[in-house]
Amino acid sequence: MKATPEAALVLLSGGQDSTTCLAWALKHFRRVEAATIDYGQRHRVELEAAAAIARAAGVAQRVIPCDSFRALGGNALTGDEAVAPGVRAANQLPNTFVPGRNLIFLSLAAAWAYQLGISELVTGVCQTDSSGYPDCLADTMDALQQALRCGMDAPFTIHTPLMHLTKAQTVAMLRDLGGLHLLALSHTCYNGQRPPCGICPACVLRAKGFDEARIADPLIATTPPRH
Amino acid sequence: MKATPEAALVLLSGGQDSTTCLAWALKHFRRVEAATIDYGQRHRVELEAAAAIARAAGVAQRVIPCDSFRALGGNALTGDEAVAPGVRAANQLPNTFVPGRNLIFLSLAAAWAYQLGISELVTGVCQTDSSGYPDCLADTMDALQQALRCGMDAPFTIHTPLMHLTKAQTVAMLRDLGGLHLLALSHTCYNGQRPPCGICPACVLRAKGFDEARIADPLIATTPPRH
Repeated sequence: MKATPEAALVLLSGGQDSTTCLAWALKHFRRVEAATIDYGQRHRVELEAAAAIARAAGVAQRVIPCDSFRALGGNALTGDEAVAPGVRAANQLPNTFVPGRNLIFLSLAAAWAYQLGISELVTGVCQTDSSGYPDCLADTMDALQQALRCGMDAPFTIHTPLMHLTKAQTVAMLRDLGGLHLLALSHTCYNGQRPPCGICPACVLRAKGFDEARIADPLIATTPPRH
Repeated sequence: MKATPEAALVLLSGGQDSTTCLAWALKHFRRVEAATIDYGQRHRVELEAAAAIARAAGVAQRVIPCDSFRALGGNALTGDEAVAPGVRAANQLPNTFVPGRNLIFLSLAAAWAYQLGISELVTGVCQTDSSGYPDCLADTMDALQQALRCGMDAPFTIHTPLMHLTKAQTVAMLRDLGGLHLLALSHTCYNGQRPPCGICPACVLRAKGFDEARIADPLIATTPPRH
């Protein structure tokens, strides 16, 4: 693989963190592209959000299908199971945990990046607010980076600009990058609602970050109220 | 994850190597299951072979779909998609190399194993006749094992019983395991033919292994001749 270190591929889900990463990448790399995994997410609004954000940011976006997780089942993000607020007794993780998800998403992004001749991967995983998901941890990213390097014989680097930030710091970073307007297009709510439900774990976490950063969430500000 | 170390999940493609791994696992683990990835392989006969082998061996088999590689294109294994050079990539790709394939297949198998409470994974990757594919190397498997362990917080071990064997040694191993009859159901031919074409690189490699081991290939012995 002949890589172009000044180019980056951002894993863009359409949520707050990956949107922030896109803005970060646009600041740090000359050429930026986006990859979005269509894994059968229950809320297709996420995919629409990702496409809208890529368009607004002026970057090429590739949607990569992955029907595996829906077929494997066992989680609340692709199946019919409701998102439960607590954790499962079996593994002490929320039922939104999809085993292996970030490993596979990043590997798919790397497979696409390989074809593009891009070695720099950017993802919004965050240890601070990880809900205990082991595939969001820095150690996991280090191990995966090594696996990608060996397995594709390519000089991949996984950039995780949000790894050790609080949600409030992430909000402030995006403001400083001048990308806050992109968040009006993003999607966070686990229940797929727009305006967001405000009570699911994802909504609560997002609201907390904006509160602590003392910044208004442009998604809330621009979403017309429901009647 | 509460793992059962006496249980193993074998990545079963329906070919010679993974069939040998299945027999190996049946010898070494009390409980064995199989996972087969349906990634849109051009020759569906491989999937039929995998199902027949699992049935003959008396193990449960799960077929995991993965439509990503076909969508990403850029390789000759997922078939009819012709890749226009210059559109896909700035670099030249060998079109039989599917970047990231084994990484993703093993990660998917691990995701399924996680749900089964199985931590022992078995794969037929082989450094000896890897055709230089970096995702068949021992270093890659070590790195991936670490990524799976960290990323799913589970004590995965990737077993690669064929890693350093020649094809002849693999044939002899299967004979010693008493599993040679399973090979009558396996599929190797790149051209998807049954009886095998005998002239494609995969057929030639398989024949060479049997010749050197001085063992008759049960696939050839049991396949009725074409008229």
